[in-house]
Amino acid sequence: MRREELIAEAAITLLVERGMRGLTHRAVDEAAGLPLGSTSNLARTRAALLALTLARLTELEEGYFTAVPPATDGPSGSSVMGSPEELADLMAGLLHRQLTEGRRTSLARYELALEAIRRPELRQVYDAAGRRFREVATAVLAAAGSRDPVRHGGQLVAFAEGVLFDAIAGAGAVPTPEDLRAGMRELLRGMLA
Amino acid sequence: MRREELIAEAAITLLVERGMRGLTHRAVDEAAGLPLGSTSNLARTRAALLALTLARLTELEEGYFTAVPPATDGPSGSSVMGSPEELADLMAGLLHRQLTEGRRTSLARYELALEAIRRPELRQVYDAAGRRFREVATAVLAAAGSRDPVRHGGQLVAFAEGVLFDAIAGAGAVPTPEDLRAGMRELLRGMLA
Repeated sequence: MRREELIAEAAITLLVERGMRGLTHRAVDEAAGLPLGSTSNLARTRAALLALTLARLTELEEGYFTAVPPATDGPSGSSVMGSPEELADLMAGLLHRQLTEGRRTSLARYELALEAIRRPELRQVYDAAGRRFREVATAVLAAAGSRDPVRHGGQLVAFAEGVLFDAIAGAGAVPTPEDLRAGMRELLRGMLA
Repeated sequence: MRREELIAEAAITLLVERGMRGLTHRAVDEAAGLPLGSTSNLARTRAALLALTLARLTELEEGYFTAVPPATDGPSGSSVMGSPEELADLMAGLLHRQLTEGRRTSLARYELALEAIRRPELRQVYDAAGRRFREVATAVLAAAGSRDPVRHGGQLVAFAEGVLFDAIAGAGAVPTPEDLRAGMRELLRGMLA
């Protein structure tokens, strides 16, 4: 692992285990098992450390999406996004993955989202990453026949975010894969009717 | 304002302006304009200060809901929740209020939600408040004819949370009242079809 990745991974772990208060250059050095001063050498300011951490998080979260089978070229060569139900099932699978494997990155991202409210330069990086997810959602909904794909894309992202936040940081139980599928099908049915 | 409220309000303001790192007993004393030691007298530990702040937040957020016109007794004496569309419009109005007037309490609540991940006793308080909102949502959906009101109630809460989080802390734009109405109508249409 490159030193930059090692440092970003340690920062993510600290955000999850101790929150924004626990993230300091010295704590990252210790958590990464690096000599004192290593984190400062790479990211001198707190802003630089936060930006580096967010960049790594975005990389990890984008990885969940590219790991999904492509929109066409299903088992029989047909489109796996043929019907709204198939699209919903694909989305539900992604959400399930984010709820389980992705729990850690989601938690760290929430910490950074809140910090970005007080740091305009971090907000820019956060929003640029968010725009990329939204553009994908908009394209997928346009392909599924939405008559208002920009609004619907944003709505799909908001729904997914809410399900994640509620289960990971909020008062909700973690939904079963079946519940996720049912919920996604209902949302898409309502939007594409 | 009672001293307890004064202290909770100052703590909420600190959470919004400086995040969890900025919330200390001394900072609350200063923000509330009280003599040093006042906050410690009322809430000796950090856990007690967080619990007191969350209790005040819950009070404020419940206030948004009770300010909504009752389910029956509309302008002409008929039910204002007569149709799914009317219910959706009512929900959209609530969301709009939370996005504007309620922005501050939502932000402070997110900080406490993340902190609750590391504090089991705060988690209990947070989840108990969340259960009350969920029970209302479940009852409303049951009354609207849902065939799966517990799951649908949770889904409605998650959707509302996602719209709020995305607009307040995330990368999304703040939706217009019209977009909120359209989104709520689509969600309910999909669930109640």
